[in-house]
Amino acid sequence: MRQVVVARHPQGAPVETDFALVEARRPRAGAGEVLLATEWISIDPYLRPLLGGRYLVPPPGPGEPVPGSVLGRVVVSDDPRLPAGTRVVADARWAEYVAVPATRVRIVDPAIQPPSLALGALGLAGLTAWAGLRVLATPKPGDTVLVSAAAGAVGSVAGQLARLSGARAIGVVGSARKAAVAMDAFGYAACADHRAPDLAGQLAALAPEGIDVYFDNVGGPVLEAALSRLRRNARVVLCGLIDQYNAAVRPPGPNLGPVIAARATLTGLVVHDHLDRWAQMQRELLPRVADGSLRCLEHVVEGLDAAPRAFCAMLQGENVGKTVVRLPEAA
Amino acid sequence: MRQVVVARHPQGAPVETDFALVEARRPRAGAGEVLLATEWISIDPYLRPLLGGRYLVPPPGPGEPVPGSVLGRVVVSDDPRLPAGTRVVADARWAEYVAVPATRVRIVDPAIQPPSLALGALGLAGLTAWAGLRVLATPKPGDTVLVSAAAGAVGSVAGQLARLSGARAIGVVGSARKAAVAMDAFGYAACADHRAPDLAGQLAALAPEGIDVYFDNVGGPVLEAALSRLRRNARVVLCGLIDQYNAAVRPPGPNLGPVIAARATLTGLVVHDHLDRWAQMQRELLPRVADGSLRCLEHVVEGLDAAPRAFCAMLQGENVGKTVVRLPEAA
Repeated sequence: MRQVVVARHPQGAPVETDFALVEARRPRAGAGEVLLATEWISIDPYLRPLLGGRYLVPPPGPGEPVPGSVLGRVVVSDDPRLPAGTRVVADARWAEYVAVPATRVRIVDPAIQPPSLALGALGLAGLTAWAGLRVLATPKPGDTVLVSAAAGAVGSVAGQLARLSGARAIGVVGSARKAAVAMDAFGYAACADHRAPDLAGQLAALAPEGIDVYFDNVGGPVLEAALSRLRRNARVVLCGLIDQYNAAVRPPGPNLGPVIAARATLTGLVVHDHLDRWAQMQRELLPRVADGSLRCLEHVVEGLDAAPRAFCAMLQGENVGKTVVRLPEAA
Repeated sequence: MRQVVVARHPQGAPVETDFALVEARRPRAGAGEVLLATEWISIDPYLRPLLGGRYLVPPPGPGEPVPGSVLGRVVVSDDPRLPAGTRVVADARWAEYVAVPATRVRIVDPAIQPPSLALGALGLAGLTAWAGLRVLATPKPGDTVLVSAAAGAVGSVAGQLARLSGARAIGVVGSARKAAVAMDAFGYAACADHRAPDLAGQLAALAPEGIDVYFDNVGGPVLEAALSRLRRNARVVLCGLIDQYNAAVRPPGPNLGPVIAARATLTGLVVHDHLDRWAQMQRELLPRVADGSLRCLEHVVEGLDAAPRAFCAMLQGENVGKTVVRLPEAA
């Protein structure tokens, strides 16, 4: 079978040659494991800090497979709860077949259509947005909620959850095209463009009374601008630092003075803390997807070999919505 | 009478000639006001950002009096609750006499001895520390609590409150002398020196399991180092930014990545939010002062004309404990 390994650790923005597609022996399901035929691989920004040694787990070395979430069908299993053909999600790697502990897979509800949503708005990305806006910061009707990377996998859900709470959702994006998508598809009331001048001024114009909740996916100057516009008792969910993932040296962070002035509470969010709320999240969001009140956009890339490029492109901001790679196994 | 006015707004570290001692007409108590003869003036770091236009209120212009908290005796009053001779604390200015609204003064409990403690450990500084560790972040027995500016007006109370909660208090100071005071007088278990190399490494050695609560008075590299050592679910009270008060341009702030990794909650503290807890705080702390379990050090400066120098010196870190200026009226 084929899998993608790390060729070298990326320097700056990852390039395709940081990865290598190699032949490998198809894994066997060991004791307590199931063998999956991969259907979908999730492409996530957190891989960049992971590869840089800035994540919760050590980075894979050169020659080692690239870690990632996959959606696949059970091929080999002696677990009666996971008969062959069962569609599951698992933390695994970028490979055509993966062997994973049976206790670590999540069965994909057949009602989830397309199933790949179980890697996106109904998966880890959705759970991230949900935990941020249902557990950590809970917008009230009338609140102004700002979301950065507003058209991305997490942001697109976050903005909608905010709106569904009765809040006014405004987004930060990096292009007019994304702004249009964010407003038209995801229901953002307005968007600022962080590549245009004076982001803080743009935010002031879009939210003259300030920001009640900021869901931050990017850090850096966008966070700095958002902090400068916080309303008193604002709640900031610090969720991602896309801005610095490619930086060789960690940049100096934002000024925290406005946090004090706003009596803001900043709470770090790591979605792993909320894994036991997965079913609860799905019970809430799935009907929303079904009735169209929660909309999902995917950036679908075809074929395992396209995964590195998809990942690099995502970090360049070229995608809209959740990037997923479709493998031939996918129905 | 005499008062101190702003001669010009400080550039960088304030210098004495930024202020001017001038003759002025003694104010009269207007309707609803009382006239106070000033006994003590509080010298507080927040004046620096205030003079720089970075505080909650606009800065006084050149020729205008320097704002500050004072402790004085009522000289003229038609309020039966405030007969002449009553000792009160008020937000006023650096002047020998001040007229203030009767509704805005706080009567000093005669049990507070010396009365100037009502400007320090039993005043705004103490309330700041108390609110941070009793309301916002509540250390549990066994927690490690880090306090920066550990030997200062706020920090010296904060470290003790932490210890009284059963936590282990460690401090960040700027000299071996302050470290000795912090440990000997205020009961810190250990101190790091931010002028010595590798503050983060020092903190790692002093708190190998990490920091549960960080009470930050300084911002900048000290905050950065503290954030890098946060334990999961750590709580950070952002209370002051001494590090940048003198900077012409706001420096880039700390990297927030560790905040996420630690699932930390950062909450801005502005003591004004907690003014209605003043009596509660005093009920708790006053017996502690009386029985010696809460120790207070003051840096007493003599005479109104010494106030500017005291202020500048404090910003250079030359004081230990709460800086107060004693005027001849003081008993």
